[in-house]
Parts: sequence; C-alpha cells; structure tokens
Amino acid sequence: MGGLFAVVSNEDCVHDLFYGTDYHSHLGTCRGGLAVIDDKEFHRHIHDISNAQFRSKFEQDIREMHGNSGIGVISDNESQPLIICSHLGTYAIVTVGLVNNLDDLSRDAFRRRITHFSEMSSLGINPTELVATLINEGSTFEDGICNAQERIEGSCSLLLLTKDGIYAARDKYGRTPIVIGRKENAVAATFETAALPNLYYEVEHYLGPGEIVLMKPDGIEQRKPPSNELQICTFLWVYYGFPASSYEGINVEAARYRCGARIAAHDDVEVDMVGGIPDSGTGHAIGYANCRKIPYARPFTKYTPTWPRSFMPPDHEVRKLVAHMKLIPVPDLVQNKRLLFCDDSIVRGTQLADTIRRLYEAGAREVHMRPACPPLIYKCKYLNFSRTKTEQDLAGRRTLRELEGGTDNALEEYADHASDKYAAMVDRIRQRLYLTSLRYQNLEDLVKAIGLPKESLCTYCWDGCEGCYGKQMTF
Amino acid sequence: MGGLFAVVSNEDCVHDLFYGTDYHSHLGTCRGGLAVIDDKEFHRHIHDISNAQFRSKFEQDIREMHGNSGIGVISDNESQPLIICSHLGTYAIVTVGLVNNLDDLSRDAFRRRITHFSEMSSLGINPTELVATLINEGSTFEDGICNAQERIEGSCSLLLLTKDGIYAARDKYGRTPIVIGRKENAVAATFETAALPNLYYEVEHYLGPGEIVLMKPDGIEQRKPPSNELQICTFLWVYYGFPASSYEGINVEAARYRCGARIAAHDDVEVDMVGGIPDSGTGHAIGYANCRKIPYARPFTKYTPTWPRSFMPPDHEVRKLVAHMKLIPVPDLVQNKRLLFCDDSIVRGTQLADTIRRLYEAGAREVHMRPACPPLIYKCKYLNFSRTKTEQDLAGRRTLRELEGGTDNALEEYADHASDKYAAMVDRIRQRLYLTSLRYQNLEDLVKAIGLPKESLCTYCWDGCEGCYGKQMTF
Amino acid sequence: MGGLFAVVSNEDCVHDLFYGTDYHSHLGTCRGGLAVIDDKEFHRHIHDISNAQFRSKFEQDIREMHGNSGIGVISDNESQPLIICSHLGTYAIVTVGLVNNLDDLSRDAFRRRITHFSEMSSLGINPTELVATLINEGSTFEDGICNAQERIEGSCSLLLLTKDGIYAARDKYGRTPIVIGRKENAVAATFETAALPNLYYEVEHYLGPGEIVLMKPDGIEQRKPPSNELQICTFLWVYYGFPASSYEGINVEAARYRCGARIAAHDDVEVDMVGGIPDSGTGHAIGYANCRKIPYARPFTKYTPTWPRSFMPPDHEVRKLVAHMKLIPVPDLVQNKRLLFCDDSIVRGTQLADTIRRLYEAGAREVHMRPACPPLIYKCKYLNFSRTKTEQDLAGRRTLRELEGGTDNALEEYADHASDKYAAMVDRIRQRLYLTSLRYQNLEDLVKAIGLPKESLCTYCWDGCEGCYGKQMTF
Amino acid sequence: MGGLFAVVSNEDCVHDLFYGTDYHSHLGTCRGGLAVIDDKEFHRHIHDISNAQFRSKFEQDIREMHGNSGIGVISDNESQPLIICSHLGTYAIVTVGLVNNLDDLSRDAFRRRITHFSEMSSLGINPTELVATLINEGSTFEDGICNAQERIEGSCSLLLLTKDGIYAARDKYGRTPIVIGRKENAVAATFETAALPNLYYEVEHYLGPGEIVLMKPDGIEQRKPPSNELQICTFLWVYYGFPASSYEGINVEAARYRCGARIAAHDDVEVDMVGGIPDSGTGHAIGYANCRKIPYARPFTKYTPTWPRSFMPPDHEVRKLVAHMKLIPVPDLVQNKRLLFCDDSIVRGTQLADTIRRLYEAGAREVHMRPACPPLIYKCKYLNFSRTKTEQDLAGRRTLRELEGGTDNALEEYADHASDKYAAMVDRIRQRLYLTSLRYQNLEDLVKAIGLPKESLCTYCWDGCEGCYGKQMTF
Repeated sequence: MGGLFAVVSNEDCVHDLFYGTDYHSHLGTCRGGLAVIDDKEFHRHIHDISNAQFRSKFEQDIREMHGNSGIGVISDNESQPLIICSHLGTYAIVTVGLVNNLDDLSRDAFRRRITHFSEMSSLGINPTELVATLINEGSTFEDGICNAQERIEGSCSLLLLTKDGIYAARDKYGRTPIVIGRKENAVAATFETAALPNLYYEVEHYLGPGEIVLMKPDGIEQRKPPSNELQICTFLWVYYGFPASSYEGINVEAARYRCGARIAAHDDVEVDMVGGIPDSGTGHAIGYANCRKIPYARPFTKYTPTWPRSFMPPDHEVRKLVAHMKLIPVPDLVQNKRLLFCDDSIVRGTQLADTIRRLYEAGAREVHMRPACPPLIYKCKYLNFSRTKTEQDLAGRRTLRELEGGTDNALEEYADHASDKYAAMVDRIRQRLYLTSLRYQNLEDLVKAIGLPKESLCTYCWDGCEGCYGKQMTF
Repeated sequence: MGGLFAVVSNEDCVHDLFYGTDYHSHLGTCRGGLAVIDDKEFHRHIHDISNAQFRSKFEQDIREMHGNSGIGVISDNESQPLIICSHLGTYAIVTVGLVNNLDDLSRDAFRRRITHFSEMSSLGINPTELVATLINEGSTFEDGICNAQERIEGSCSLLLLTKDGIYAARDKYGRTPIVIGRKENAVAATFETAALPNLYYEVEHYLGPGEIVLMKPDGIEQRKPPSNELQICTFLWVYYGFPASSYEGINVEAARYRCGARIAAHDDVEVDMVGGIPDSGTGHAIGYANCRKIPYARPFTKYTPTWPRSFMPPDHEVRKLVAHMKLIPVPDLVQNKRLLFCDDSIVRGTQLADTIRRLYEAGAREVHMRPACPPLIYKCKYLNFSRTKTEQDLAGRRTLRELEGGTDNALEEYADHASDKYAAMVDRIRQRLYLTSLRYQNLEDLVKAIGLPKESLCTYCWDGCEGCYGKQMTF
Repeated sequence: MGGLFAVVSNEDCVHDLFYGTDYHSHLGTCRGGLAVIDDKEFHRHIHDISNAQFRSKFEQDIREMHGNSGIGVISDNESQPLIICSHLGTYAIVTVGLVNNLDDLSRDAFRRRITHFSEMSSLGINPTELVATLINEGSTFEDGICNAQERIEGSCSLLLLTKDGIYAARDKYGRTPIVIGRKENAVAATFETAALPNLYYEVEHYLGPGEIVLMKPDGIEQRKPPSNELQICTFLWVYYGFPASSYEGINVEAARYRCGARIAAHDDVEVDMVGGIPDSGTGHAIGYANCRKIPYARPFTKYTPTWPRSFMPPDHEVRKLVAHMKLIPVPDLVQNKRLLFCDDSIVRGTQLADTIRRLYEAGAREVHMRPACPPLIYKCKYLNFSRTKTEQDLAGRRTLRELEGGTDNALEEYADHASDKYAAMVDRIRQRLYLTSLRYQNLEDLVKAIGLPKESLCTYCWDGCEGCYGKQMTF
Repeated sequence: MGGLFAVVSNEDCVHDLFYGTDYHSHLGTCRGGLAVIDDKEFHRHIHDISNAQFRSKFEQDIREMHGNSGIGVISDNESQPLIICSHLGTYAIVTVGLVNNLDDLSRDAFRRRITHFSEMSSLGINPTELVATLINEGSTFEDGICNAQERIEGSCSLLLLTKDGIYAARDKYGRTPIVIGRKENAVAATFETAALPNLYYEVEHYLGPGEIVLMKPDGIEQRKPPSNELQICTFLWVYYGFPASSYEGINVEAARYRCGARIAAHDDVEVDMVGGIPDSGTGHAIGYANCRKIPYARPFTKYTPTWPRSFMPPDHEVRKLVAHMKLIPVPDLVQNKRLLFCDDSIVRGTQLADTIRRLYEAGAREVHMRPACPPLIYKCKYLNFSRTKTEQDLAGRRTLRELEGGTDNALEEYADHASDKYAAMVDRIRQRLYLTSLRYQNLEDLVKAIGLPKESLCTYCWDGCEGCYGKQMTF
C-alpha cells in the first residue's frame, strides 16, 4: 500500500514531517523516505525499513535535515522520494498507488525516445520515476499531473515538492485519500488524518477525486477541481485504515463499531464472549459486543512491542512466522468457552485455520466467526494491496470453483448473500475452518455502516463492480 | 524492570531463546543480551535497544549463534549477560531486580580484597557483576546463590548458564516471577508465561520464593525448596505484566477484568461509554464496561507501529514526547460524550492532565476517571520500577502533604479509603485534573480481584506494608 | 580523478571485479561502486568511502553478489554505477573524466524535452546520468557513445555493462587510459595496469583515443577504431599513476627514475642524501640518487597504515590535517644534514612550506628541492584533477603575477625555462619557501623521460598547449 | 604485538590520544580501544579493527569523548582498555606483552578465591584482566604493578589511567619500549616515538626495564627506578618498529641502513639493482644499495591504499591472500635483470617462495636474497609476536632438522655462521627457494648495526640466549 505526508511551513518543517510520515508506518513494510528543501537545495534520505522501524532508521538523519517544506513516504517496494530534474525544474516526488500499464508506458516512452530510467533495481523500472516522466511531458506541473492521471491504469496519488510549494494530487477516482491539514503558519497533506491532531493540525479539506492543490504556508490553491467520480477503497474502513483516521469525513473506528453492530443485529447465537482478531477485527468486535450486550474480551493479545505492524511482509515464510508469533492466546479466556470472533475479512483462510486450531487446543467449546465484509471473490486491481498472489487463492473464489467443478460460473450469484449458492459456499468454508458457525457481513450492511453511497465506494473485491458511477444501485 | 528467558534443549536452542527473550521487550528500554553455550564455548551478544527493537538488533547475530542452552535478558540499565570465570568454573549470568546495598556489598568485598569489578560503565559497578561476586563466595552454585539472596537488600531473580545446565533462582520473596515451561526435549524458564505458548512450551512449574532449580533438557532438579514468604509485586497484574501471562497461576487479563468489574460494582455514574488508557487500562476498562453493560469504546488509540513499548524511556523530555505522540484521539468518539476511563494508576498525574485537557478540547462533555489501584503513597524500594524519581512527586503523596501543611502526617489514615482524609485527598486530585468524577479502586477489592491472600502480595506502594507474612490481615 | 575496472568471464567475476576495482582506491576519495549482471538481473552497490577503505565497505556486499560480468568504479563525487533503462535496453554505466558543458547539455535536453535526471544530489545533476542521456540519443550503444564523445567538452572514459558484453570506450583524446587485460576465459578493462598481474591477467591491448571495444569472455571486438589524436595526461607519470602501472606501454616507476635522472644530469649541488616527498616524489628521488650516486634516504616516512591514500580529501581543513599527520620526520636523518628532495610538483606550495619549516626545526643544514615537472601555470580543464581551486593559487602563476604587477603578461616567456623571467620566478618561489636551492625539471626533459612524442602528451598545465597534434614541436 | 599511548594534559587530551594511538595501527590487527577520564568519570570505546582502520572506527566516538587524561591501545586479541574497580579505586588499564603462565596465575587466584574474571570471550580469560587482578593484590598501584611484574612469565608493559595521573610501567626486562614525551602542559607515553613529533611532543625519557612513573600534566614522578637487566627485542629494529621511531635512543630507519650496509660490506655479487621486500626490507635495501653504490629500485611496490598494514592477520587463508595481493610487481624493472633483495627475515619461507617464483615468471635473470638477520631457529616466547605457529615451521629450524635426520642436534653449531653446518643449512634453504645466492646477516653485524651491547638485546630467536646479562660476550 504505502502512505504519504507533506508539510509547507513558515518555519522548519522537519519535526512535523518526520512524525507525520512516521504515523503512516502501518501502511508499508519495505522502505521509507524523506525529502526537504533547504535554501533551494534538496536533501533526501531513503532507508530500508523491513527490519526496523521508520523512526529508528531516520532519527539520525533528521538532525541534519533542515527546511521549511518537505515530503515523506512509507513505501512498499520502490525507493522514494525521487529527486527529478527536468524542463519543469527540480522537484521531489512521492506516489502511492499502482501503475498496471507500466510496461506499455515505458515502451511508449522508449519508442518516442523521450526518456530513460535510472532508478533501477532488481524490481525493474521504479513506478515513481515513470510517473515523473509522465509529469515531465507536460508544460507545467498541473499539465503533467493531469497527463499522468489520464494515462495511468490503476491509481496514483502523489506529492510534488517544488521550490514554489508542494503539489498534492489525489488519484483520478479517489481510491486513496489525501487530506489537507492546517495550523498557524503551516499546511500539511496526509493519507491518514490520524497523523494530524498530535502535531496540532486540524482537517481543512478532503481532496476529491483527481483534485490538485498547491500547498503554501498560508493555505492551498486549487489547481484542478475534483471530479465527482469517487471510487474510494472500502477496505480503508474495513481493514487497513488507522482507527483514529477519517476519510471523506467518516471515522474508521466508529464505522467499525457500526459494522459490527450491523452483523450483531442479524445474529442470535449464544456465546460467552466476543473478541476481535487484532488489529482490525477489534473495532468490529466492540461494535458487535456492545450491540448485543455480550461481554467483549481479548482471548488473543497482540504482542505489539515486537510485532507492531499491521501489514504483512511479502515473504511467505516470514509472514507465516509473524502470523504465528504476533498473537498470543490467553488460555484462561478460552478454556471451556463459547467464543465469537470478528475479523476484518477472510483472505485465504490458512492463517485463520491455524488460529482456530489453537483455540480448540486451548479448550474452546465453540468458535463462531463473523468477518466484517462479504467473501472475497475478486483480487484488487487498483491498489498495491495484495494479501494474496492470485485470485484463485481467495477462500471465497476457491470454494465456489470447487462447487462449480473448477469453473468460475455464476460469480454474480455467489456474490449475492441471499442466494443458495452463497449459502453453500459459506457453509463449505465454515466446515473447512472447523467453525461452529460462520456468518459474513453482507455488502449492503457494510456500505450502510460506512455511510457513503454505494456508487462512491469501490466494492470490486466482493461484487466485481468496476465503477458504478451513475449506475442504478440496489442499495 | 527487565525480563529474562532461558532454554536448555537436546537441540539447538537459539530460535526459542531469541523469540522467548523478545517476548520480554515490553519490560525494558535500554539493553538486551543473549548468551549460549556451543561446544563448551560461550558466545554472547549485547546491544543497546533504546532506539530500536530487540529483534532488529539481534537478527544478524543469531544467524551465527549455535548451542543447546542459553539465556537472554531485556535489561533497563546494565549490560548483560556477563560471562564470569571463577573457581566455580565459567558461567553466564543475567539478573532482574534491585540491589539497594550495592555500595555496602562492594565496599565489603574490597575490604576483604576478594574481588574487583571490570564491567564498569559511567553508571558505576554493574549490579549483575556484584551478584556474581556474591555467588563466587560460595563453594557451589547453590551455596553462592543462597549467599547472594541472603545478602542482597532489594530483590534478585537470576539465571546462570553453566556447562551442566541452567540454574534458575527466584528472588528471596518472589517479588518477580520465574516460571518453568516444558516441551519435548526442552525446558524453558521465563518471566512472562506469554512467551511460552507460541514456542510450544506448557507451564510446568511456578518457582516459589527463593527456590532454585537446575534445568536440564529432560526436566528440572530442585536445588533449594521455596519458602512460603511470598511478596510478589501487585503491579504485575495492575500495570506491567503482559495480559496473556500468568503469575502464581493467575492470568493478568482476567485479573484486570475482575478488577474493573469490582470498581464497576460500586459505581453508578451515568456515562455514554467506557474506555481504557492504553495499554494497561484497557483490561480494567473492559471489565468495567462488561459489568455495567455500558458500551466499551476506544476514544484514544495507541499508535503501536511506532510507539510499541509500555515502559517509558528514562529521559524526561523524551518521555513527554512519547506520551504525547503515542495516543491519538478519535474525535468522533469524544465530541459531546460523557466518557469514563480506567487507567492502571495515577503516578504523578501530569501526563494524565494533558490527556484530559485534550479530551475537553475535542468536545467531551464529562470525563470520569477510575484508576485500577489506590492512590500511590510510597515509592517502590524492591524493584527497579521507578515511574517517578521521588516519593514527593506521587500525586497521592504530594496532595496529602499539601493537606497536612507540608508534612507526612497521618499516612495510614490517607491510605484508608474509608477515611475522611482519603476523601479529601481524592477530591483535591480530582479538582486538579478537572475530572467530573474520580474514584480509585480500593486495596481490598484489588487484592480480591487478583485472588492471592493479602499477605502474599506486596502492597507497599499503597499501604507501606513492608512484608506482612504471618501478620493479622483485615482482609 | 577516479578509476574504473571491468570483467567479463565465463565464470563468476566478483572476486576479480572487487580486487580489480580496489586497486584503483588511490584515485578517488569519496565513493565506490560495483555492478554485476546475474541471470539477466543487475545488482549494484554504492558506498561512501570518504571515511573508510573501499574494501571494508564492500566486503559484506560481495558475498551476495554473483555474476559473470561486472563493472566497478572509484569516484570522486558522483554515485556510480548507474543502472539505466532506455530504448537501448538496460545497462550499467561508470565514467571517469570531466564534463565542462554539463549545464549546456542538460539545458539542451530539457529544451528538446527528451529527458529528465533522477540521480540528483545536492551537487546537482549526476554527470554520469548526463552521459547516459547522450548515449541514449543513439540508435545503438556505439552510436550513443560516439554522440557522447562528440558533444562532451572535457573528457569521458566509460564502461557500459550490458547483457551482451561490456563496452569499454576511452575518451576522445585518450586523456585517461583504458587497458584491456586477458586471461583464460576472462577479459578485463582497467585504468591501472597494476590491477592486472595479481589477478593473473596480462596486458592485451591499450585502447587508443576514442576507441570503443565490446568485451566478451573470449576476447574483444573493436567497434570504433582509435584516432591518432592522443593527448594523454602527463601527470599520470609525474604524480598520480600507480608506480607498477604502464600507460601506452610505458611504466610509471621507470619513467620516474628517468625523470629524476634527467634532473640529476644537470645538477651538481653537494648534498648528504637524496629523499622523495612520498608517495610520488619517491620514484623521482631514486632516479636522481642513483644517477649521481648520492645516498638515497627517507628523512620523511609516510604513515601508510592510517593515511594510505594519495589523493587529498576535498575539504581544506581535513587536507591540512592529513598533510600534517601523514608524514613523520626521522630526526636522525635530518639533523645537521644537507638534504635534497624530489617532489612530483609544487602546486600551491603552502603544504611544502610547512614541510620545509619542520626540516629546519629538526636541524637540517640545507634543503634543496627538485620538482619533477616545470612550474604549474595553468589549471587543468580536461580532468577532474583539481589540487587547487583557482589558477591564481598556483605557486608559479601567483609568482609571475606578482612580478608582472598583478597581470598575466608574458605567460609564454615564464613557461620557457631558458628565459630570465622564468629564472626570476623560480628564485622568488625559492626564497618564499626558504630553500637553499630550487630547480624544476624542464618540460623537454620531462617529455623525453616519459618517452612519448610531445604532441601525444597533454602539457597544458605547464605551457598552455591545448592540443598540438600536427603542430611543429620544438622537441 | 600491540601498541599503547597515553596523555595527561591540562587541556582536553582526546585529539592527541586519538592520533597518538592511531600511530600504533601497524602493531595490531584485531582490536583498538580508548579510555578517558572526564570529570572523574571513565568513558571507554573498543572496536574490532580487523576489517577497517582504527581511525574510521573511532572517528564518531571521539566527538563525544572529553577529558584531560586518557589511554589508548592497539591490541592483537583481547578487548582493551578495561575499566576496573577494586580497593585501589577505579582505573583503566591497557597492556602489551605475553602472559605465558596465565593458567597458573588464574588457578592460583581461584584457589585463594580472591577474584573472578568477567571479560571472557571465546578466547578464555582476558590477560589484561588477569594483570589487573595481580595489581589488585597490592596495597598501592606501585605495589600491585611490582607484584604483576614479578609473577608474570613473559612480558607486560602497561598503562594505568587513574584519577591521580597515569602510571606507565615498562615490562621487567624492557622487551617492549615505553617512552615519555613532553610538551607544554602535557605529557605523553608511547610505544612508538614516531607518534610524538606530529603532535608536537619531544622525547623526554626512555623508561628503563621495570621502571614505573606516574605521569601528571606538568611532568613525571619516578615510582620505581629501572633495573639494568635490559633485554629489548631486536626485531623492533629489524622488522616491526616504525622507521621514524627510536628505542633506547636508536632510530629504526638509520639502524636498518647500517644493517644493510654491513651485509653489503661482505658482499661482492654483481647485480643490476637492489630492492627491498616492503615494508621492513626497504630500509635494509637502501643501506645495502648506498654502501655498494648499486642502483636502488622498487621492482615490487606495495599497494598501501588497500593493504596498509604490516602485521599479518591471524587467519592463514586471509594471510596468503593479503600476501599475494599487497605486492605488485613492476615488470619493466624485473625483465632480464639481476636482482638483489633485502628482506627483514625469512620466517617459513613459503610466501617468499611465491614472490621469487613470480620474479622468474616476470623474466628475472638472477634473484639474490639478503635477509637482515640470521636464520630463525627458536620461536619467541616473550612477546605475542608469532609469525608462525610452531618452531618446526621456521625455515632454519626445519632445514637443520632435515640435515640432522629429524632431530634438533647441534642447534648451537647451526646458529654459528662460521660453521660448516650453518653453511649447509643456508645452501639448502637457497636451493629450496630457487635463489641465485642467499646470504644472511650474521648476529654480530646485526648487533653492531643496532649499536646496543649484545647483553642488552634479546637474541633468543637466533641463538636461544635466554638473557645474558652479566655473561661473557664474544662480541
């Protein structure tokens, strides 16, 4: 995934930039970077953060960084920020998103012989450098950003640090957020609004889809108005957004309470306590427990001093180890109990199967599972948000293929929670996971729990809808 | 504070040792260390962990560490483990505790010209090296450990890695725990039982006060039986023990639920939601909310990816920054609400005052506080467990001195929650913190929530009792 | 300055690449880099070597580098190698030289909107990235290299690592050398031939001016023949080439002996011993001493364990410290002695003045100086070979300006060692340095000592000749 | 081997301490350390210097070190300085030497239960900590040092940093040097006098055997007068002392010139040039060449930027690699030439055989070898100065055993350069090395070249003399 943060100020911005970027640490596992302008000179640091926290890696650097404006990034793969020099001048750039047509775009650039790429790694062309070449095709930064947004398939929110201010540009369909914060003498841009209050910024403006603003210490200038074709990622509320953050004005933690409550409202299973699979399941579980007035408890505790991150490292073996190590069961809360858990979602289900097995080993009498979203049937193609490599690994998709003799027949029917096929799929997943009962949140309740219109939310993972702006909605 | 872990196995122990020690990361902020025996040779690594996690610092080292037995430590100040060579042979040692009479003991050793200290730092003599010299005065390891336990004022739990096994010795009064875990072909010793299940160990034996065992791969041999003069630190359950751990067979998380419930049982204030000040307040708050069936919520979220630790760094300015940064308010859950919070305790109250101020700024209508233990009146003298430098800084002590004209009159009366003086003290604290209401847990309920006899728990911080074994108890 | 090395082999090349590059450590002070191709993937490491040796910085990296072909560089300023992806494919590039028209070339590229630069630092555009953009303007690597050589003002020798072999291209006028070495199954390219014998390569071919070859494991293919307009830097033999190396087939150490001998042949001053100012003065001094059969001695020893480098760090204060610390006088060899020293050259003379002062303090009776080249009057404009920042700081230039009332009159006359003006200039330098006698090598003897025709050597620093190919030579 | 340095000053001593210690880098390969007293507190840093220079490892540390007195060490194995606290107070200690009876001494201490050792490593007890325990047996520092000197078999020069000044104590027989240097407001102690002049100290006093002084900023106080039983290591002049240093007032470089000249005086072989095997052979070769007026040349150059050290790393494979890489042949100076080389000594001869082979491969017509000392027959037992593991590996010893049918018969005769057995041994070594001629320096000429009485020099390696003070000398 990745996260980004920017500050322009009348004073030195490094303290705010450092902590503001740091508050995006849960969004990436590989690299972090900071760039500032000091006296018209750019200074940049990039570190591998796969084995250490962002803070510990940059603590030394920031003592020697100075400047009134700067941008920072937590990145999954590529090195960022890049410092680019072109006919537009010198600027630093960070991006969050996914460029699906990277190969086409670079082949096209080579064909026209208008560029080269030097930020190569074993991973190939750096997508952020590619975005920079698209920007460089414009006559102005605004032109260039529009060109990039037009030509990129996928999504790309970005920040450009220039000598005249910082351009903040949200991706064309607003799949990821950028929010402007304000305090006296300084303006910030952030992915997570949770980064703002402890630095004394207040939310000033949620950028709309495709909107471009130029940030200056005394405020923002709109350079391109937003479209109304919002397709923000629903998983921000379900899974990866930070609880204290809000997107489109809607708080994550509160949305999760509502989501859990909506599951609870349909439920009447008798259990002794309700727990959440940390971290994201917790909010849903609290909502569920409060609604039904069943005791909330923590039969699994997460060992945050050591496994603080939410996102999973890309290496499979390491991921398995982390999954095993970070949750510690509390035997006293499990023994002989009827337990109900909320989790954000079931992706492949392998990790969850291990968790459930350990609960039974610890003496659980019953284990009921309530995922906070419907079964995943499609793999995200708009964001770098891959919790599995192939669509076929998704528990929902895999199960329906089994039921359909190895074909992808009747996908729409399986996505409909009122259908028999859906019921069969869910029951088979339940059996495989040895669950006493399994009941997924349905899409309508999920959408209503969040509170945005269905057509403004990307729900592709569940119903394959590729953008339903202007379409007739059933809810 | 500090934590310790040990493994003796028929196979290589480094994986278990590394993760087992890592699960004590919440207990210390400064140093970590590991020592193993490989082919009769000792190998040791010590790192400063004040700016990075234990795991990231040792990840490289453990690739080159091998051996079937080893010990590890998370330490607040001193470098550990030490490798010591004496007439007893060569051994490695780690300790957890506090040696109050360190100066006397070293002066005595110098007077008798029986030793020197070489693990010097700017902090003076390394307490663990001092403990080793006391052990070296014995003819055997057991003798030596007994000598150390007799002569140390304070407390000292320790592990000795020798070629014949690992000695685990709990401090004389059992102020800190050591628990033996067991799996096929391996035996572990741990401070936190939470370190055991993910490494597949089961709790086999809780060491008693002063008990010494020799751990071998196939089991433990008792070398000194426990006394019955247990004085275990109550704060293990109230504040710093990990929720998934148990001491004396009593789980922390469950004890906190009971503690919160006992506060709730006396309470009838009307509020909209109940929250906990992370981390330790959470368990108490859940217990409270469940008891009164008031919605539990998280109006403050802790940013664990970056501020994962519970213990506070010793430097005051850094501590203030961390305190400010690690908790992020969730405005939607605060605005116009009547909030009740459980916290583990109120130490100085300065940090809490800031937290409360921010709640009102975010629009809270009422703020009620329910600390999970009585007012602190005495400063701990048995463990390296200092959350404040002087007794006079304790909110309770400071307030009663104000009420008593700057004297320490009537300490016992102030410690009695039924007295008028107690009520006056609490009310003054409430006013100073701008709380709508303030109600501390009382000592009797706290003791009953934990479930051990009053005489087995050290309650010095609250009632000044220096060890009441055999005394008449009122509850 | 900088140095470069390359290997293509049928086997893993990393060992040879690492040591071969390492043998260029004396040519740069700031950065080192290695790139290899392994299974069609490029792997690269770059380190700051200003505070540590190349070897210690890369020792860890090379354990994980694998590949049959690779390039390495010791660089003064910029990060290298770059890995570039363009319509030519992906390649790695290192360069040695100086691009004087970097600003014009980048402005031109921006005007045509054909590129951007991403390897920015506080130093601005990375010259090696600029060279890459010039190469990318071609339809083939050969085309592109020719384009770069045509358009660069200054000089640029380079190596391109591609999947089909390594292109080695010497700069247009052959100012810096590239030499091809050969052993069974492998071909190397090197700046210093001294890098070859210990890796078992033999010199196969000295690339001529502007020559381009493609190196493959079984030999080289000429892609562009050399011109005959050689202008190789004379200072390679006088000062910075490694003694064991040869350029154009002429060994450095032997050339220095001949150079010293030619000074000696004109000299009859009576002295007790002859010494060299380490490192480069040593060879000249040996030649002098052997010629006149006066004892050679080392009244100054260089402390190589700590100050191993020849090149001076760019920071002035550090340079002064290094200059002071690296030479240790041997009082027994100075006291009451008449000493004659050979040095490679006198640049500004400030450091030499300090050295001479210390000799007198140690009791020297007489100090005679014999620089191995004429007075420096012009500052090099073809290579990144700056031992002073401005032409006016050169001892020769400064002195003649004093004599000419602050003007640069009669430069040619001052460059003529037979003129009165030359004699006046030298005598004034002598006086300022408190030398008993001072006699510079003359240009004719220097040229003859090296053994190449005058027109093939760049002598700009001394006579301002900007390339005299085809001109009438006086010697 | 190892080296040491100390400063007491009225001002901050760190600059002098850092560079003074650094000038001992050629004496050790493994560890370096510094300790200072600042405001009565000790600060210490120790680093592994096996893969990087002392300077680069400590450059960061010294920015935060402050204090008016300090000690530094370059150490072969053990971590130093140690900071020790005993009845004598707190002090830091560094040692140079060899404790042969370390096991006996530690067993004795254990038996008396008077100590323990904590500075353990895989190498066992730290000899410097053992020396500290011997010092701690005294009632005063002087007492303690005398006790240590009495009881240590081997040798031990040491420095003690205390709050009242620095004790400098030369080993009982003066095998290694300690020299006091002086400048205004500061006093230094050094192993190498070469460390003094660039820091503006002048030699004030050469400590005699067993002498102890207390250094204070304004001068030294003698605490124990020297004995007259000097047994200083002859190899200081022959091999490992730095050329610019003097011991007992005798300069190394000048002694090597005299040594080479004495070989030359007996020699009449016709050769084209004389060279030295770097580094130590160089001085001897210059002396030889000057004496016979044969051209001195450098057919082998040492690549000092990368292989700056003289001492060899302990690992055999690494040593072979270094030996191969550090010397670069100059083919032009070898081809078709009759070459004579001086080397400091022939130890095992294996490395030399490789060097000679390469000379023939490069076209040498004749190779004559002149070692600067007699054949080595005994292995040093007084210093940590092992260039071979066993006596049997010494080229001289091995050859005489071959000639004596595997026995050590007639060692004295072989040590006599006038005997037939000596001649047979040398000829056999010559043949094995494919040398055109081989002529060792004889012991009498070596002793006279140095200029101390035979009985003051340790010549054990050559004649097995274990200390001949007061004996009748033949020369």
